[in-house]
Amino acid sequence: MPLVRITLKEGHSVEERRAISDGIYEAMLETIKMPEHDRFHVILEQAAENVIADETYLNIPRTGNTVFVEITLLRGRTVEVKKALYRRIAERLFANPGIPEEDILIVLTENDAADWSFGMGEAQYAK
Amino acid sequence: MPLVRITLKEGHSVEERRAISDGIYEAMLETIKMPEHDRFHVILEQAAENVIADETYLNIPRTGNTVFVEITLLRGRTVEVKKALYRRIAERLFANPGIPEEDILIVLTENDAADWSFGMGEAQYAK
Amino acid sequence: MPLVRITLKEGHSVEERRAISDGIYEAMLETIKMPEHDRFHVILEQAAENVIADETYLNIPRTGNTVFVEITLLRGRTVEVKKALYRRIAERLFANPGIPEEDILIVLTENDAADWSFGMGEAQYAK
Repeated sequence: MPLVRITLKEGHSVEERRAISDGIYEAMLETIKMPEHDRFHVILEQAAENVIADETYLNIPRTGNTVFVEITLLRGRTVEVKKALYRRIAERLFANPGIPEEDILIVLTENDAADWSFGMGEAQYAK
Repeated sequence: MPLVRITLKEGHSVEERRAISDGIYEAMLETIKMPEHDRFHVILEQAAENVIADETYLNIPRTGNTVFVEITLLRGRTVEVKKALYRRIAERLFANPGIPEEDILIVLTENDAADWSFGMGEAQYAK
Repeated sequence: MPLVRITLKEGHSVEERRAISDGIYEAMLETIKMPEHDRFHVILEQAAENVIADETYLNIPRTGNTVFVEITLLRGRTVEVKKALYRRIAERLFANPGIPEEDILIVLTENDAADWSFGMGEAQYAK
């Protein structure tokens, strides 16, 4: 159910991009009680000048290569669960492919069960 | 008012992409009481490895060519209206340009009347 | 905290794209009580046929070069503040780089304090 959009500067190899997607998927399995195989990710590679992240905001020393991770997911996770998700994504992407934790921006948008169709023209999560 | 973002793998012709946009627009006219001409669509063509959709989740046999349809729209449609929208989008995109219904992922995000400006720096829907 | 996604047709120079991003950032500082340096923008340049905006909806004579401005921000701005934001974005983008006010589409999506991680795997806005 989470829809993940990853936006980053051009120049990451296929392996690096796959590792970022894998890490986010694994972090979600570990923290937000997401079912296995629930993986729908889009990666948007953009020209360097089109990915703009302030390098000082909140005193976090970003390197100029911020990875934007936008996640649309079902409403209802607690603050503690969201914190665990951020922690785990940062740990995993730092471990592989080596993204500095300063450079991982995560933004969640919540929606409702009826807001998802996984194919076949049906609303699989709506009662 | 709906803002539609369509993300898919590179390799769809201009005609195919136009048919996808047309089909979504027509499905909205038919199901969600959207006024005519309310059409604001963006199509994001991405490298194959950047569009990742699990091929088994919820036992739907996806082909590897999922079309992601993200729609931002005004809060308040009923579950029944949303179901009708999904059904009609799937029917129309299967009819033309022939997208398998398994490969149509639809995700809604709702917002409010004051969250839209259609130009001129004004909030046309806000009272 | 606002995450800004700007989508437009290919063919805008680096300077024009920078001016659009600058103008939105400045308009936010002026209207929504955003802290300085809170700037996280992505610009998506797309082929002409992939950016579709009706040229008559709500009787606004769009030129075919609509700039889509999608902003994810913390819930809670008043309608008046949102109106001021739209006004100021339109004024600034018209002043530089000269985008017609008819061609500026702005869509907001609100989320909550716990929905943001600005790096380090932490939820900086969550108490």
